[in-house]
Amino acid sequence: MTRRPLRRILALTGGVGGAKLALGLAHLLEPEQVTFLVNTGDDFDHLGLRICPDIDTLLYTLSDEANPETGWGRRNETWHCLEALEQLGNETWFRLGDRDLATHLTRTAALAAGSSLTAVTGKLAAGLGIRHRVLPMCDEQVATMIGTTAGELAFQHYFVRERCAPQVTGFRFHGSEQATLGPTLQALLAADDLDGIVICPSNPFVSVDPILAVPGMRAALKAARAPVVAVSPIIQGAAIKGPTAKMMAELGVPGDALAVARHYGDLLDGFMLDSSDAGLLDDVRGLGLHAIATPALMLTLQDKMNLAQSALDFINGITTSNAP
Amino acid sequence: MTRRPLRRILALTGGVGGAKLALGLAHLLEPEQVTFLVNTGDDFDHLGLRICPDIDTLLYTLSDEANPETGWGRRNETWHCLEALEQLGNETWFRLGDRDLATHLTRTAALAAGSSLTAVTGKLAAGLGIRHRVLPMCDEQVATMIGTTAGELAFQHYFVRERCAPQVTGFRFHGSEQATLGPTLQALLAADDLDGIVICPSNPFVSVDPILAVPGMRAALKAARAPVVAVSPIIQGAAIKGPTAKMMAELGVPGDALAVARHYGDLLDGFMLDSSDAGLLDDVRGLGLHAIATPALMLTLQDKMNLAQSALDFINGITTSNAP
Repeated sequence: MTRRPLRRILALTGGVGGAKLALGLAHLLEPEQVTFLVNTGDDFDHLGLRICPDIDTLLYTLSDEANPETGWGRRNETWHCLEALEQLGNETWFRLGDRDLATHLTRTAALAAGSSLTAVTGKLAAGLGIRHRVLPMCDEQVATMIGTTAGELAFQHYFVRERCAPQVTGFRFHGSEQATLGPTLQALLAADDLDGIVICPSNPFVSVDPILAVPGMRAALKAARAPVVAVSPIIQGAAIKGPTAKMMAELGVPGDALAVARHYGDLLDGFMLDSSDAGLLDDVRGLGLHAIATPALMLTLQDKMNLAQSALDFINGITTSNAP
Repeated sequence: MTRRPLRRILALTGGVGGAKLALGLAHLLEPEQVTFLVNTGDDFDHLGLRICPDIDTLLYTLSDEANPETGWGRRNETWHCLEALEQLGNETWFRLGDRDLATHLTRTAALAAGSSLTAVTGKLAAGLGIRHRVLPMCDEQVATMIGTTAGELAFQHYFVRERCAPQVTGFRFHGSEQATLGPTLQALLAADDLDGIVICPSNPFVSVDPILAVPGMRAALKAARAPVVAVSPIIQGAAIKGPTAKMMAELGVPGDALAVARHYGDLLDGFMLDSSDAGLLDDVRGLGLHAIATPALMLTLQDKMNLAQSALDFINGITTSNAP
């Protein structure tokens, strides 16, 4: 059996963790070879602006505009508008940088003029010099709502304003029943040359599940000819970034990579663990999944490219092993 | 005959020239003593933001936030958002500074939430520490349209984008027929203690005429007990700032202060000329108006306060001379 180079890949991603692997994939694959499908459940309106945090994190990451210190926003950012907004009595818990504002202004104006989120995301990507395709999970507005012991909170209120402090009880994706699979995504999922689907190491509950909640999404991903593999966002029981592990504890789920594999369930063909979690490989295989352990902590660009290469090799291996 | 101190004053103003006299009045009069009624015919939507150039010029002038070098925008301004907007392919002929943007964002969000322009202008003024009342000429949207030999242009396209280059043939105040006098203004115009109405030295055609085009405005100003006086924006046949003199030439109107007095016609009780134009006093008086000549070039704050004091004294003198 010989391995062919992979032709086209679809990668599902949320914010920071997912964007790291996305950057690795973008470095390995030509623009026409990879499409990023991004969570928009975090999107919200603030000061009249439509803000799409996960799309922006990916756009800034792919264009080398991401701020490495904060994990959000743009490099070399200034805060003069925010200071003036504060003087005028506005809420400033969501930190809008001067350069970042240009993204929100451009998007908001385009949406108001009738553009779809898909179209304006393409325009923003092009303006930032990104050649790979970035698609929102849908054009309709979906709002991830966090159930907590202190009541339900909109995602950004939970995540930014309350700094993930409230204890989580569950999730709801408001508006998802009206969401639809866009034509570009549908065509890709039906394409003969789609060779793999990667779920990036993003939060399963609030980054990936909103994507899967778009009606028809989960079924279409399963129905695609290509194998679906997920990369664990949990390494040795901890999340590299964000509240994934804290949420798992609050939800009463074991806080390990195996629980993430169980969470995705029959959507997956394969699951990738960090090398330090290799002890869980048998349990993951016990779920009926292909599984590998590989260095999954992405600190450098080389780490990101290495993990992306491992994911591509893993997909290729699954395809080959499944071949008649 | 003794002169009483003036109790309340209404001042009509457009942009830079008018705001200079407004600043002088604000330094002489207590907050409850003067109300500024501002042209909003220049207002427009840009990148989804509602921008009110004359209101902002007045707010920034009164709060010592105005940029003395440019004559528009805020002091100590930066342009990081604008640079990023340009990278994303947006039009940048209208220069949005980072700190200035906060004003437009605050206003746009408040209007979208159902606030009136009057209410949000009050909020902005308060945020900037302004205690005098600033009122838009109306809450409805009115758009000053400039007729030119090259076709009709929206005001900001004529003024900023085309830098007043096209030859003017006339003006139209789109939407003014739907505009109404606000309750605060109506109450002030009907008040017994309104002792004077000042038309600041703004462009008669595109700064003051839009205010006068609000249905009922001209009649209500004339019907008020207080005398109406205008300060000439033309000194020795030239406008201190802006296209007033150029417009007069293109419209075939003599380019002097007398023509400005004629333009306002029977609305006025009195007219103030610069000392250097004292030779026109008899002609202005020939129109049936009270008239004085006084230094009207406002370079320093003291100049502004002196001209404001002259206007108050002039009004007082008219009131006294008209007393039974």
